[in-house]
Amino acid sequence: MIATKLYEQARRHLGICLGLDTTETVLPAVISARDESVGEKFFAFNRRVVDATCDTVACYKLQIACYEAHGLDGLAAYAKTLQYIRAKGKIVIADVKRGDILSTAEQYAKAHFTGEFEADYLTLNAYMGEDAVSPYYDYIKNRDKGVFVLVKTSNPSGPQLQNLTVQSGKPAYLAMAELVSGWGAAFVEPCGYTPVGAVIGLTYASEFAPIAQAMPGTFFLIPGYGAQGGTGKDIAALFQKDICGVVNSSRGLIGAHLGKNAGDGFDGCVREAVLAMREDIAQWL
Amino acid sequence: MIATKLYEQARRHLGICLGLDTTETVLPAVISARDESVGEKFFAFNRRVVDATCDTVACYKLQIACYEAHGLDGLAAYAKTLQYIRAKGKIVIADVKRGDILSTAEQYAKAHFTGEFEADYLTLNAYMGEDAVSPYYDYIKNRDKGVFVLVKTSNPSGPQLQNLTVQSGKPAYLAMAELVSGWGAAFVEPCGYTPVGAVIGLTYASEFAPIAQAMPGTFFLIPGYGAQGGTGKDIAALFQKDICGVVNSSRGLIGAHLGKNAGDGFDGCVREAVLAMREDIAQWL
Repeated sequence: MIATKLYEQARRHLGICLGLDTTETVLPAVISARDESVGEKFFAFNRRVVDATCDTVACYKLQIACYEAHGLDGLAAYAKTLQYIRAKGKIVIADVKRGDILSTAEQYAKAHFTGEFEADYLTLNAYMGEDAVSPYYDYIKNRDKGVFVLVKTSNPSGPQLQNLTVQSGKPAYLAMAELVSGWGAAFVEPCGYTPVGAVIGLTYASEFAPIAQAMPGTFFLIPGYGAQGGTGKDIAALFQKDICGVVNSSRGLIGAHLGKNAGDGFDGCVREAVLAMREDIAQWL
Repeated sequence: MIATKLYEQARRHLGICLGLDTTETVLPAVISARDESVGEKFFAFNRRVVDATCDTVACYKLQIACYEAHGLDGLAAYAKTLQYIRAKGKIVIADVKRGDILSTAEQYAKAHFTGEFEADYLTLNAYMGEDAVSPYYDYIKNRDKGVFVLVKTSNPSGPQLQNLTVQSGKPAYLAMAELVSGWGAAFVEPCGYTPVGAVIGLTYASEFAPIAQAMPGTFFLIPGYGAQGGTGKDIAALFQKDICGVVNSSRGLIGAHLGKNAGDGFDGCVREAVLAMREDIAQWL
């Protein structure tokens, strides 16, 4: 019942998802000065951030690209961070945006839902249709896993394909929304949400209502708060009827200590930034 | 001039791309019986296959999912295989199908065009538009790298999004073809091709002509030969005017030794399968 667990966490913590998109520029001096590999530094930083925030966030999200960029050393930090978060009983979303044919998607499912890289949720790209998603169904049914499929992204060039008008007069992203909603319908949990979720960028908050309407029972992963421009008011508008998703902030939270001379207290700055994000959302709810 | 190098290799070797989608089921008994990790076995197998085929193929392609599925051990084999192929002067395509916003795509570019996982070409998914491709432009211009962007895939559910009719009356994949062609236009090399290539599945060979017409100067990565159903006649039809791409076969080549009691001569079976693929294409050209 992973969707139920995430929904309950989202209600408790106003949907806050802390993005561990860890890079060298976000490391505090007390960690970057250590005589360790980049991966070791990343894990040392992540562990402190998780310890300081795990009672105040709904879940964590790791952008795997930040770790892949440092090869095996970076990916070892990725694995250790996933394991650390899950050992604390918190939910972790692996932001991998994989998408491929059946036989390949089966390999990705094995990669990210078992073994060293095991996460609770994955992000997926379904440009190739349901084949890129269906190999994960067994894990959803039998191993308590979930996925978030890209529907509408908030980056500047997102509309190039996603906003093309298709035959029915809808934008392509609404056609994708209907596909994803159809795939998830078989897995709806008693809480009313399915573990086949959708990624919807916060930058286009006005487009959220028709997407949500096209996808009843869908839980959302919403990137774009903070550094990417989304505000607490935007989030509160999405959460009007129910806390129907989690809102990710990365640089705005894990970089909160930068320029503050926080020394070894960097993790306290991150925690304060999470609490400020909570206030920012709560004031509009 | 990576597009020129790949084009020349494709002309010499009839566009044959050998897919090292290595899995445990494709390992010969002489390797699977070894007292080694899965990753060590994968690399031992790959090295023998590369040694036996590097004078007969245009390039190699590694499906990273097969390696990710075995965690850090699998990814160590992935890294070693890439390094081994490049040390032989052969071109290697990393089939990673990554696609993300600018800051993330920059991390992926660093991950797969430098360091341990350095490849010559990457496959990309541009559901998010040009932001998912533009961070690679610097590597194309300054580090002799190339990309293949998904346009039309050959899997059964590929049409769900890709064949939606958009406003202009075209299928969405043709709109994507035009976008990709536009992005690549700035990088066309003297050979006439741009290093911003496109992935077109072979299963829908009849759809190839309009795609090629919409993308002048585009070089293609064409999966789907062999195990996925494509034939030499199909390929020859695509190559009528010019050897305008590389055609990938994986299971049909690296699994050629299975059921043949080849023992330690498994690599000879793979080589024979490559030569048979060459004949299969040549007879129709």
